[in-house]
Amino acid sequence: MIYLDSAATTKICDAAKKTIIDYLDDYGNPSSTYEFGRKSKLLIEDARERIANCINAEPDEIYFTSSGSEANTLALNKYFSISTPFEHHSVQAQYKHICIDKNGIVNCQHIDQQLNNFASIGKSLKPNLLSCMYVNNEIGTIQPIEKIANIAHKYNMLIHTDATQAVGHMPVDVKTLDVDMLSASAHKFGGTKGSGFLFAKKNVKLWPIINGGKQETGIRPGTENVLGIIAMAAALEDSIKYIEERTQYVKMLRDKMLAQLLAVDGAHLNGSIENRVASNINIRFDGVSGQKLVTLCDLYGICISSGSACNEGNAIPSHVLKTIGLSNEKALNSVRITIGYENTEEEINYATDIIIKLVERIRSNNE
Amino acid sequence: MIYLDSAATTKICDAAKKTIIDYLDDYGNPSSTYEFGRKSKLLIEDARERIANCINAEPDEIYFTSSGSEANTLALNKYFSISTPFEHHSVQAQYKHICIDKNGIVNCQHIDQQLNNFASIGKSLKPNLLSCMYVNNEIGTIQPIEKIANIAHKYNMLIHTDATQAVGHMPVDVKTLDVDMLSASAHKFGGTKGSGFLFAKKNVKLWPIINGGKQETGIRPGTENVLGIIAMAAALEDSIKYIEERTQYVKMLRDKMLAQLLAVDGAHLNGSIENRVASNINIRFDGVSGQKLVTLCDLYGICISSGSACNEGNAIPSHVLKTIGLSNEKALNSVRITIGYENTEEEINYATDIIIKLVERIRSNNE
Repeated sequence: MIYLDSAATTKICDAAKKTIIDYLDDYGNPSSTYEFGRKSKLLIEDARERIANCINAEPDEIYFTSSGSEANTLALNKYFSISTPFEHHSVQAQYKHICIDKNGIVNCQHIDQQLNNFASIGKSLKPNLLSCMYVNNEIGTIQPIEKIANIAHKYNMLIHTDATQAVGHMPVDVKTLDVDMLSASAHKFGGTKGSGFLFAKKNVKLWPIINGGKQETGIRPGTENVLGIIAMAAALEDSIKYIEERTQYVKMLRDKMLAQLLAVDGAHLNGSIENRVASNINIRFDGVSGQKLVTLCDLYGICISSGSACNEGNAIPSHVLKTIGLSNEKALNSVRITIGYENTEEEINYATDIIIKLVERIRSNNE
Repeated sequence: MIYLDSAATTKICDAAKKTIIDYLDDYGNPSSTYEFGRKSKLLIEDARERIANCINAEPDEIYFTSSGSEANTLALNKYFSISTPFEHHSVQAQYKHICIDKNGIVNCQHIDQQLNNFASIGKSLKPNLLSCMYVNNEIGTIQPIEKIANIAHKYNMLIHTDATQAVGHMPVDVKTLDVDMLSASAHKFGGTKGSGFLFAKKNVKLWPIINGGKQETGIRPGTENVLGIIAMAAALEDSIKYIEERTQYVKMLRDKMLAQLLAVDGAHLNGSIENRVASNINIRFDGVSGQKLVTLCDLYGICISSGSACNEGNAIPSHVLKTIGLSNEKALNSVRITIGYENTEEEINYATDIIIKLVERIRSNNE
């Protein structure tokens, strides 16, 4: 198998695996007051501190959740929010007015204009939170969050960023970004599925979406996923430790593959090559169904995905690709290839050859 | 260490541990369409079927969540509900009118009366869901859910039961119980923290509390906690397989310990000894602070809890004990001891001796 879908989920890294195996027997409930319970509590608090350090936050600004989706839902809960139209489906803002250009990048001037328009209307209709993803999950484009935060704050709004595809893959510093909230998901950076976190700056008001006890200072009740949390901390530290060399390596593989794929007739990259995470290729081949290409790749043991992960299996064009101006046909001709640091050069060479051959085969069969 | 707090959380059972270790490398995203993703999807669907079998439900009636609290929140979301006043804090009903007698058991006649009163008032004030826990988490009393379901249905209401303390510890058959919804938590029956499930009968309407993708038929978005889910299935099957012999054994240990503790002057069992799960002792010693007893037990490596797990560390009397008519003082003099099948007779003998000595010591020091 050649796994080229790291944006869907990453392999559980060795540090996370080791953590899980080492702590399987530390089953104390973190809410229990005896030593065995406090030990679990300490494990969680240690993980909170390590995760906070990784993004330059304070420990009490980190809230553990079961996923990036839950973190996004928690962040936006009860706020009146505005977002881009190409967010993940878990970001459900009241307004989706923020324009994205054809390169897949937010237009900052346009945000300013939009927010200025809102400033002149009635207070009850004015959004108080701006949510913009840091890295798009399909085309990998990096948004100018620092600038966007600046604009949001100018209009006295809070800013949230869904950084699910960024955390662990590029340096993330919440102070430099100047964001009020930030979401992340463990299984995108070598942790396990079922864990994520929300960063929320001190004094940012949050409203729980789950009822129950006093866990996470009452903001996120429910007994903590201790193993998932400590594995997430180990995975994030591991990601940050090797981030430079891994990014360079992944980018080298990506650029090599991309150059060869773009040499195919009628091949087009979706979204800007600048301001794009190192791992991401989102490409379309004229006349070639993305889904068909994904299915045929699978027969060769190559894991890639069609434009939209949520719509996999459906013939629904990706809302992200439509947002950057692609027609339904072009959107449906697209595939996403996301490379991880564990991929070898041989894998990339082999996969590139196979993909090119499959594109030719689909075209010649007029399938 | 002698662990006597299985109601707070259980040890991860060997079957669950083995499952986690065996599947750590099956990291495919269940939403991905290629074989490696479908493999994860199949693991989840297999777990769903096995869990459904354990409670006599259909697989598509099981929704995976991150905890019992989340399952309870999801179950009640957007319903207008009535519950007992001694539910877990995650069950937040609009009405908490249902009377509990001094034995810790719901008064069925009173429910009928209450619901009849509602029947005569305006439709907008009428609850459409009755939620009653199966086994109380503090005093272990078993509620007559079958009868309660019957009454609820008579008034055209749905019935939900928080069965967090029941599933895996006593036979649970959703068809016999005739419940519309039922919540459970994996870490109460040998699974890991961070996994639970909601059973909801076909045609019972649910409203998601987390936004996002199509996981769990859109009812519970967010990438699935694959390892937690498959470990939960393994743990539940294991619990059910040995349920009779374990229950007998635990009851034998409990009864032995209880007899000795009740022989202490001024010792009183909280809640009925009939209709009580086999594992539970909730006892008060006149003039002895429950918290002090818990703390001193900890020095001897004995893990027990004060009356209320949620309020541990606070001097707030348990709402459960107050509900069954205890004064603040009596509630604060209480401790919960919950025995597991992994406890040995030697452990129970030793812990009983120590607890009796500590009760004497606290009293003689007039602490």
